Amino acid sequence: MNDIEHNHKQELNFPIGVFDSGVGGLTVVREIIRNLPEERMIYFGDTARVPYGSKSKETILRYSRQIIRFLQRKGVKAIVVACNTASAFALEEVKKEMDIPIIGVIKPGAEVAVKATKNGRIGVIGTEGTVKSHMYKKLIQNHNDKIQVIEKACPLFVPLVEEGLLKDSVTVEMAHRYLKDLKASHIDTLILGCTHYPLLRSTVREIMGEEITLVNPAYETAKGLEELLKSHNLRTTAENHGIEQSHEFYVSDAEEKFMEFARSILPSNIHTVNLINNIEEF
Amino acid sequence: MNDIEHNHKQELNFPIGVFDSGVGGLTVVREIIRNLPEERMIYFGDTARVPYGSKSKETILRYSRQIIRFLQRKGVKAIVVACNTASAFALEEVKKEMDIPIIGVIKPGAEVAVKATKNGRIGVIGTEGTVKSHMYKKLIQNHNDKIQVIEKACPLFVPLVEEGLLKDSVTVEMAHRYLKDLKASHIDTLILGCTHYPLLRSTVREIMGEEITLVNPAYETAKGLEELLKSHNLRTTAENHGIEQSHEFYVSDAEEKFMEFARSILPSNIHTVNLINNIEEF
Repeated sequence: MNDIEHNHKQELNFPIGVFDSGVGGLTVVREIIRNLPEERMIYFGDTARVPYGSKSKETILRYSRQIIRFLQRKGVKAIVVACNTASAFALEEVKKEMDIPIIGVIKPGAEVAVKATKNGRIGVIGTEGTVKSHMYKKLIQNHNDKIQVIEKACPLFVPLVEEGLLKDSVTVEMAHRYLKDLKASHIDTLILGCTHYPLLRSTVREIMGEEITLVNPAYETAKGLEELLKSHNLRTTAENHGIEQSHEFYVSDAEEKFMEFARSILPSNIHTVNLINNIEEF
Repeated sequence: MNDIEHNHKQELNFPIGVFDSGVGGLTVVREIIRNLPEERMIYFGDTARVPYGSKSKETILRYSRQIIRFLQRKGVKAIVVACNTASAFALEEVKKEMDIPIIGVIKPGAEVAVKATKNGRIGVIGTEGTVKSHMYKKLIQNHNDKIQVIEKACPLFVPLVEEGLLKDSVTVEMAHRYLKDLKASHIDTLILGCTHYPLLRSTVREIMGEEITLVNPAYETAKGLEELLKSHNLRTTAENHGIEQSHEFYVSDAEEKFMEFARSILPSNIHTVNLINNIEEF
């Protein structure tokens, strides 16, 4: 084995970097654990600057670059942007600047929605930023410009999820308002375009009805990540023995609150969450 | 007139620095304009990192120090921490580090509540951070340790206000839940311990009843600021001629959205809002 082969063999077992504005990206981590249980992850949740959904493209791009630099210093082999707003605002730009593979949640979500729709009407719900970027619409219409895409921002869903009001009457009331026009538009496919929203799946399902296909981009992203790693020959050679416990979690604020939330989302216990209080310096 | 007198005379006409996590502090600006119409203000809204209410003391202290350095470079003669969470977490520490007068919103609010209560039961509503700090309770009981203080965090009030749902049925429902225990505790005075909450005054009033005294610390802070300036001989000698238009507004993100909100709160038009995209470097 020569040096290059040796180095590559080491690289295969490097972790995957995953980041989000806070806890929402854990729904993506959950799917990656299910789909690629042998892979190790380093997760960064930007809890000091959460939420991203109401902020501008310039700000989200700056924050994303800082987090990517942090993850690269941790020696990750690939990066998952596990946040729809950051995927919408930053992915295209940062992709050009990087020498390791990177994947966001929007393209995988858009592609599966294109495959799923039969009547050519797709709905997208997301943060203000994601909806304003029209990134889902663009990517869907790149595949098929005859598909109608109806987008709706749901700004209160994130705080309602963060408060744990997943099936509360107030959440149901807000969901009725946000989804009213989408329901009236006779869409047959709805993209849950924010990583917090899969936690509201049953509320959305009840309002939209059984016949609608709900797309959770987290699931598709995990599958897309597998393909990406394979195409770059970066799948780990490690075997899965209690690997869940070796994931590393970092946040920019309030590590205990994060840990509590993570325990409710992830299948295995998180043992430690580390605080990074200088992410802006990366 | 000697040099020192001359310098002091100039300093009198320096602006007052005011800051908040975002738009909430504009309710304090509104009261300062009413109370001290001749004074000029430089306002900083940390819209890139809003909200502060769910974040840790360490993070809020770091952010407050950066903003104070920014305001000091603008040559302010005094500083108003127009945010309850920052007043709770950062005021005591930064006061020690500064050579110009600084005032927060909590002490003025606590003092007027002590004067207002007749039955010795005061309620406080605020963000998670403000309530966890127990700063209102401490300051009230410093005056009179027999006063009972009942505190309640209302984490959804800020996002509801930011969405403009001031009198909406969802806001009323959440207010009923948050205020239930306070109402049952027979308080006679309630402190609106977050700068967003005065915008929910009529909803809170309706639930709590006419007999309760609602304390808006913004009003008391403006009066406290007047006293502070007088005691330091720092009242401006300028006269009030269309001075409203010379206030300066800075935000760390999304200046247009801020301007819209500001127009709905302040009596006069804001002409420009400036973006500062490197507040973390101050």
